[in-house]
Amino acid sequence: MTTPDSTEDLPTNWGRWGPDDELGTLNHISDAARARGVAAARMGRVVSLALPVRPAPLAGPVPFATGPQPAGVMQMMNFNGSPTRALTDVLIVNTHHGAVTHIDALAHIPLGDQVYPGVPIARAVVGGTVQHGSTTPFAAGITTRGVLLDLAPQGRLRPGHLVTGQDLDEAEQRAGVPLESGDALVVRGGWRIADHLGEPVPAMTVDAVRWMAEREVSLYAGDIGDPPPIRPSGPLAMHQVALARLGMPLIDNAEVTALAAACHELDRHSFLFVVAAAAITGATGLPVNPLAIF
Amino acid sequence: MTTPDSTEDLPTNWGRWGPDDELGTLNHISDAARARGVAAARMGRVVSLALPVRPAPLAGPVPFATGPQPAGVMQMMNFNGSPTRALTDVLIVNTHHGAVTHIDALAHIPLGDQVYPGVPIARAVVGGTVQHGSTTPFAAGITTRGVLLDLAPQGRLRPGHLVTGQDLDEAEQRAGVPLESGDALVVRGGWRIADHLGEPVPAMTVDAVRWMAEREVSLYAGDIGDPPPIRPSGPLAMHQVALARLGMPLIDNAEVTALAAACHELDRHSFLFVVAAAAITGATGLPVNPLAIF
Amino acid sequence: MTTPDSTEDLPTNWGRWGPDDELGTLNHISDAARARGVAAARMGRVVSLALPVRPAPLAGPVPFATGPQPAGVMQMMNFNGSPTRALTDVLIVNTHHGAVTHIDALAHIPLGDQVYPGVPIARAVVGGTVQHGSTTPFAAGITTRGVLLDLAPQGRLRPGHLVTGQDLDEAEQRAGVPLESGDALVVRGGWRIADHLGEPVPAMTVDAVRWMAEREVSLYAGDIGDPPPIRPSGPLAMHQVALARLGMPLIDNAEVTALAAACHELDRHSFLFVVAAAAITGATGLPVNPLAIF
Amino acid sequence: MTTPDSTEDLPTNWGRWGPDDELGTLNHISDAARARGVAAARMGRVVSLALPVRPAPLAGPVPFATGPQPAGVMQMMNFNGSPTRALTDVLIVNTHHGAVTHIDALAHIPLGDQVYPGVPIARAVVGGTVQHGSTTPFAAGITTRGVLLDLAPQGRLRPGHLVTGQDLDEAEQRAGVPLESGDALVVRGGWRIADHLGEPVPAMTVDAVRWMAEREVSLYAGDIGDPPPIRPSGPLAMHQVALARLGMPLIDNAEVTALAAACHELDRHSFLFVVAAAAITGATGLPVNPLAIF
Repeated sequence: MTTPDSTEDLPTNWGRWGPDDELGTLNHISDAARARGVAAARMGRVVSLALPVRPAPLAGPVPFATGPQPAGVMQMMNFNGSPTRALTDVLIVNTHHGAVTHIDALAHIPLGDQVYPGVPIARAVVGGTVQHGSTTPFAAGITTRGVLLDLAPQGRLRPGHLVTGQDLDEAEQRAGVPLESGDALVVRGGWRIADHLGEPVPAMTVDAVRWMAEREVSLYAGDIGDPPPIRPSGPLAMHQVALARLGMPLIDNAEVTALAAACHELDRHSFLFVVAAAAITGATGLPVNPLAIF
Repeated sequence: MTTPDSTEDLPTNWGRWGPDDELGTLNHISDAARARGVAAARMGRVVSLALPVRPAPLAGPVPFATGPQPAGVMQMMNFNGSPTRALTDVLIVNTHHGAVTHIDALAHIPLGDQVYPGVPIARAVVGGTVQHGSTTPFAAGITTRGVLLDLAPQGRLRPGHLVTGQDLDEAEQRAGVPLESGDALVVRGGWRIADHLGEPVPAMTVDAVRWMAEREVSLYAGDIGDPPPIRPSGPLAMHQVALARLGMPLIDNAEVTALAAACHELDRHSFLFVVAAAAITGATGLPVNPLAIF
Repeated sequence: MTTPDSTEDLPTNWGRWGPDDELGTLNHISDAARARGVAAARMGRVVSLALPVRPAPLAGPVPFATGPQPAGVMQMMNFNGSPTRALTDVLIVNTHHGAVTHIDALAHIPLGDQVYPGVPIARAVVGGTVQHGSTTPFAAGITTRGVLLDLAPQGRLRPGHLVTGQDLDEAEQRAGVPLESGDALVVRGGWRIADHLGEPVPAMTVDAVRWMAEREVSLYAGDIGDPPPIRPSGPLAMHQVALARLGMPLIDNAEVTALAAACHELDRHSFLFVVAAAAITGATGLPVNPLAIF
Repeated sequence: MTTPDSTEDLPTNWGRWGPDDELGTLNHISDAARARGVAAARMGRVVSLALPVRPAPLAGPVPFATGPQPAGVMQMMNFNGSPTRALTDVLIVNTHHGAVTHIDALAHIPLGDQVYPGVPIARAVVGGTVQHGSTTPFAAGITTRGVLLDLAPQGRLRPGHLVTGQDLDEAEQRAGVPLESGDALVVRGGWRIADHLGEPVPAMTVDAVRWMAEREVSLYAGDIGDPPPIRPSGPLAMHQVALARLGMPLIDNAEVTALAAACHELDRHSFLFVVAAAAITGATGLPVNPLAIF
């Protein structure tokens, strides 16, 4: 197995669960983690972490009308007879678009010509679909305990702040609930990336990812990631280290404002975390609606 | 308001929650129903009710290769530089396809020129998208208690069996848990429609839908519906009565085999039921991965 | 056969070539018309009448980038291995978009519940495709003589000018070449509709369509049509009379500036006219690149 | 500039028309070639060289219906109000599919990390579209003289026959018309590849491509190419030598049966050859309907 350059000092799970593993850090979700999750759901109140996406019309009714494109989702209403017998549509989903809350499958980001945990791209993508490291394992549904670490409870992080393990430690202290192996980590920095394109929004560091590896985080969701424009040096902490090396599925573009408000109101930062991506296998990611259930 | 013919004796919720209602029977999901739901989740074991869908390649790597089409989902792998920097794809989702577990929005089936609860199609579909009765309310996430009624615990219903309210009553007795207002109803008859195309599979009757209306079911999922070929006389019980008149969202093509096995093994038929459709608004339905959490 | 209201005084070819005709005014293209066409091609100089369309990226490389949408054509570059072995793409074509030079098939515009020449929509569209009045006849290729009638040789028509048969007569005099049965008519008014959205651009009248019917025009291309916003009263002259009643295929959004310049330079207004739409059958229209060959 | 291995003895036009050339062998089409083309059109009879493509429904009206896929073209009929005001559709075009008669743009096949005439892929594909070597030059329309060389006038070539320059010489003798610089070459071997998948159909050799280079062929169409399965050794004569090195646009999957019959009937093998691809720029190829006009 060829090891990509300069990974010696980066955290990695390549090999930890075997050469064919497709679960990555979801392996941390034990029965105990799941039981901890449902124990945190007491009243049934549910908070969505998804940005609503209004589809752009693929073939608009007004021939010259325009709108933002490439869109995260496009829609075409189908003809079903005249008069119509049913209203149906086809959706075109551009999963990794910045306006779509989505989960990244492990094969999304290769390191050189390999994907987690060392499978050649030529073997991971066959026949026009992903055969290794795809969304397939997500089809079983993901449930575990989630913990919100709010890095800026009074507002938002400073522009360009680089989030470290110490930041996460301090937020954990404030949350009053220690992360345990298999928990999903939800982070709030107070910036909605789509509203700040091209600005120096906060970003995760490899140091923070190292903290996640040590705590055995199973899954990440948050408003902090590897913001464009991509930083010129070093690996992308979340995509090239957490996702590609640790095998940690990432939920990009999560909307955590309502969650933070609920945690504040209820005065607790843990909840049942449910990710029920559509059972579409072989994809590089899927739009999701992560739910925090209190 | 034009009232479609012959609806006098059919159950309806048109007008019950106002002329602009978009929730339909989801209005039955009270705080109590949600609390009942999380109370049924004790260990965190999760069972998916979704059929896995393997996308068909839209532009296959072999120029002459063919496969089944129209497919529920098609996939295009994107070019992201050579060598590639990321593996991404675009999905084309044909939601109402028979191989896709999906939720129908209330506007999916019109009655004449109106959709639930009496909104003209011309006002429900504007600008190439659905403005009334779409998937928009599903974006908040749906949680309630689910109850499985297994109509044929030892095997499967007879071919062509027409499910009545009495069948549901008897299954409820066997389940040992009475349905309460706002519960999600999951039904198993033992037939996977996709495996029996053109055969006389079991179907729901208006009598069964009347039972659902009386019990104030919030949401339906199951392997019994309005199977093709469409019966020549009378309304389609689930689509033209439950969905269009009651405003009850339907989860078509649910896979309930594993759920029935889990209920049998754990000796209980109630669970936390979670539907977390992607937050794509304005659509006529969405693929979903309904989860039963024990 | 139900006759749509108020068609008594409108020109029509319904029935002229039988109840199943799919050629419409292309029936006028005789061997003589084709011979006249090639006789007008003497040097091989070719002028395109198509607006160039740059596709919008369906899944752009920059996650947040946006551009005009719905677009006439969208493009997705395919992944073909890493490193890539071939550069391929998939195009999504929204034929009737205002930025696309395209040919309308006869079934494009129904009159009530029928399409030319009186076929019910329920019989014209079957199985998700057009079975009558589609692009199928265009697959053979269309060649005939074309004649440019320039309505404003020195500039452009007045805003809101309504083009009459007399206008066409006068332009024909200036052109110095009489239209003959089966010729393609190309008209220039000097307005590119896409540059004047919402402005009172010139439009065709039923009187002009009557002139085309009398001259037995086989095919229309030009920069004048039925501009949006649609005029509130009366039928749309080109779409509801010429296309739907005469069965005259229309080439919408033709770009005739270069053609007018070539006619002026060469001092003749006739040429070989070639329309070679891709042999995609069953569609409501297709993008085309009409060529004038001198 | 990196020169791909083993190109020393292969014919090439890299550099012949400058480092930024996008026309390739279309540069051979002089005014004289165009005039020769129209001189060959005497009666206006037109023969199409395109295979008709019936689109597959993307969202069929019958939920479980299936058909061959990936298809060359898929179709979605649009909802335009109920009752419908217009019949429109969206097409998804998978250009390089084996059932689609299409023209390959010069950038379609890279050699290593470069496309004709030595432009790096990273510069040829930018922003999700092709910026160098795309379909853009085809938008002007292509007209020249075409010559049919029928390699098997009495039937078809032997299975697995490898076509050489001598074969082309002999067919030219039979045709009775010498190829001149800038002519389009149309070849018939008598095999329709789609009907013989996996069989040893005839193929072109580098020797034949060398002949084309010497004759300064501008454009190739025919029923012989680089058939799948791809031969294990040596370059693909048409795609990796003619297209990628000579810069000769290829029309794949041309249907030449009717053309051969017309040549036989009229006793001449030359004609006006017209390729009028839709003016969609930036693509790797486009479906076309090549016309031979006699």
